[in-house]
Amino acid sequence: MLSRRTAWDLAGNRLSSRLEALRAAGRPLLDLSEANPTRCGLGWSAAELGAALADPRVSDYEPTPQGLPAAREAVAAYLAGHGAAVPPERILLTSSTSEAYALLFKLLCDPGDEVLVPSPSYPLLDLLAGLESVALRRYPLRYDGEWHLDRAALAAAVGPRTRAVVAVSPSNPTGWLLDAGDLAFLEALAGERGLALLGDEVFADTALAPRASAAGARGCLAFHLSGLSKVCGLPQLKAGWIAAAGPEPLVAPALARLEVVADTWLSVSGPAQLALPALLGRRERFLGPLRERLGQNRRALASEAEGAPFDLLRSGGGWSAVLRLGEAVDEEALCLALLEDGVVAQPGFFYDFERNGHLVISLLPEPGRFKDGISRIGARLRYKRAQ
Amino acid sequence: MLSRRTAWDLAGNRLSSRLEALRAAGRPLLDLSEANPTRCGLGWSAAELGAALADPRVSDYEPTPQGLPAAREAVAAYLAGHGAAVPPERILLTSSTSEAYALLFKLLCDPGDEVLVPSPSYPLLDLLAGLESVALRRYPLRYDGEWHLDRAALAAAVGPRTRAVVAVSPSNPTGWLLDAGDLAFLEALAGERGLALLGDEVFADTALAPRASAAGARGCLAFHLSGLSKVCGLPQLKAGWIAAAGPEPLVAPALARLEVVADTWLSVSGPAQLALPALLGRRERFLGPLRERLGQNRRALASEAEGAPFDLLRSGGGWSAVLRLGEAVDEEALCLALLEDGVVAQPGFFYDFERNGHLVISLLPEPGRFKDGISRIGARLRYKRAQ
Ligand SMILES: Cc1ncc(COP(=O)(O)O)c(C=O)c1O
Ligand SMILES: Cc1ncc(COP(=O)(O)O)c(C=O)c1O
Repeated sequence: MLSRRTAWDLAGNRLSSRLEALRAAGRPLLDLSEANPTRCGLGWSAAELGAALADPRVSDYEPTPQGLPAAREAVAAYLAGHGAAVPPERILLTSSTSEAYALLFKLLCDPGDEVLVPSPSYPLLDLLAGLESVALRRYPLRYDGEWHLDRAALAAAVGPRTRAVVAVSPSNPTGWLLDAGDLAFLEALAGERGLALLGDEVFADTALAPRASAAGARGCLAFHLSGLSKVCGLPQLKAGWIAAAGPEPLVAPALARLEVVADTWLSVSGPAQLALPALLGRRERFLGPLRERLGQNRRALASEAEGAPFDLLRSGGGWSAVLRLGEAVDEEALCLALLEDGVVAQPGFFYDFERNGHLVISLLPEPGRFKDGISRIGARLRYKRAQ
Repeated sequence: MLSRRTAWDLAGNRLSSRLEALRAAGRPLLDLSEANPTRCGLGWSAAELGAALADPRVSDYEPTPQGLPAAREAVAAYLAGHGAAVPPERILLTSSTSEAYALLFKLLCDPGDEVLVPSPSYPLLDLLAGLESVALRRYPLRYDGEWHLDRAALAAAVGPRTRAVVAVSPSNPTGWLLDAGDLAFLEALAGERGLALLGDEVFADTALAPRASAAGARGCLAFHLSGLSKVCGLPQLKAGWIAAAGPEPLVAPALARLEVVADTWLSVSGPAQLALPALLGRRERFLGPLRERLGQNRRALASEAEGAPFDLLRSGGGWSAVLRLGEAVDEEALCLALLEDGVVAQPGFFYDFERNGHLVISLLPEPGRFKDGISRIGARLRYKRAQ
């Protein structure tokens, strides 16, 4: 009676069941999987937000499929700050980056068509694609002292039903960065094979090295995706965007259709659209303390990693860190043991690593708690090794 | 390069092109197609909304796939007022009723599956279904002094791939009401054939006679759909809901999957969720003046209809009225002529009437403008007949 596209196995895994049980029992936990900035002391005050939300124009409704002009201009200014000149006419607001994916999958794919996504990558992409009846194929990001794109493997993954390539940069969870060379490669490949490039750049403001943006693509139809969730630490507002790039003959019809798709829901809340210019303009209010936090926790992790039985993989940005433990480690057993130690960490298999033996932790937690958490991870791993 | 599901013919029709040209030329128009209450003097004040939106909890983010408990309790209280006892656990917030359709289509249908929708009906359903790769089949509402469901025709329309029946009550644009007998029929049919019932009840608070709610269904899996857009006249907030009804063995797995679908986007803005209880609780602030407006405009229309060359079709509620002009009338030519008279009205073909010769007008406009508009329609029709 219900659809195959929602026929998931909803029985929780051992890890989620145990976590739920511990939480229900009120067990104090150091949550190193926390990705919600408002729970890590990195949010805005209620007064700041309230002032932005109680806009005098909130009682009017002007349905605009692309989103309010002032909000699109603010996004254009944000992108200009990242070196990409995108006119407001090529920008479309969405209620989140997740919704942006859904709209673009509909625009580009019919049921059964394919999209290439990186591996490792964050698990939401499987759900997002499946709900649009789109199939995912993986292309590998590989680590050899730093993460890089395996261009040949990516090119080989393109099949007759491939419609788009997703590049997440900085990537979640690896911190891989799309650089100018990779962008040129992707533009050429996409242009040749008639694919669109989707650049998920929600973590752009945390990049630790120069990077290229899909918003600057010229050789193919490309879309930059981002939103207030990660740029301002405001996941609760539900305001994101798509910026289109590429040759006008490709962009114009794509945008015309995208507008109709957006018009079908008009899903971005009016107060959030009205508040967007002020909040995006003041993003350093969030990004400053965020970068400070990420840096402090990275340094703590680097010092914990010295002499510890794990490698801290080098990252180009983002909100998380990857620890490499060695292929022999049972990720699930380790994470279960860590739960008993009072630490929540995520196993690599949540993120579809090519090889076994990784742990993913969030860099957002308050530094004291973060340090405590990683020292317990270190202790647990040393204990394991000693056995 | 773009999908077949978005391969619409985007060339405007003659009517929309002419309307755009007149608007661009600054021509004053009496817009009897206006469905936006905030443009008809039926909105809330910015101060009232601002106070509800600037909630002190707005700086926290608690991602809940079903939506904030307080908001779901407010919806349960609203439904109780309509005679349906739905516990908050069976309610799920959505960013709009349109999104509610999308989530339910995904839950119930795979690509190529079918959903039955009424004819006439409002045009958004085609877009909503097409974007989920779901096919629509029509079942007729028929007029014989009042609108009624042709049960035999509906039963005959059920095919092997039919997954759901949509009932819009009061219907847009006819004002047809689902009564207890029709609900019992639909429950039995849906129960027997393994279908779900979707009750779009956004106009419930304007019903002019007793009606039955899908939220009270017991014989099949059923979903009531509504939202602040029509219940509070707040389309800009983007807050709607789904309430599930029916036997627990059908509802429980449906809700479990629906939660995962909702969790993929978590699309309802935090400020809107926090404001929902206060706004929904004070809905009479909007509904009182709205009912007054609808009644006043209906009376004006009834008196204009006396002796005029059109029939005002009897309606059980909703925000619009249907004028029957006779099958020989060219709807498009008439609407084009009305544009030159300074009146915007919608042709029946926008709403997929079985027969030709209808005009649909909104009952929202300010009464002076409404009266002026309908008297011009009367004059134009008398002039046509005289020719
Ligand atoms: C790489 C990446 N893209 C997109 C998202 C979703 O962002 P949003 O909250 O705007 O849907 C996430 C969330 O974690 C993410 O990690
Ligand atoms: C019958 C009906 N259902 C649903 C909707 C859409 O409502 P929402 O604004 O909540 O998406 C409309 C909009 O006109 C409608 O007429």
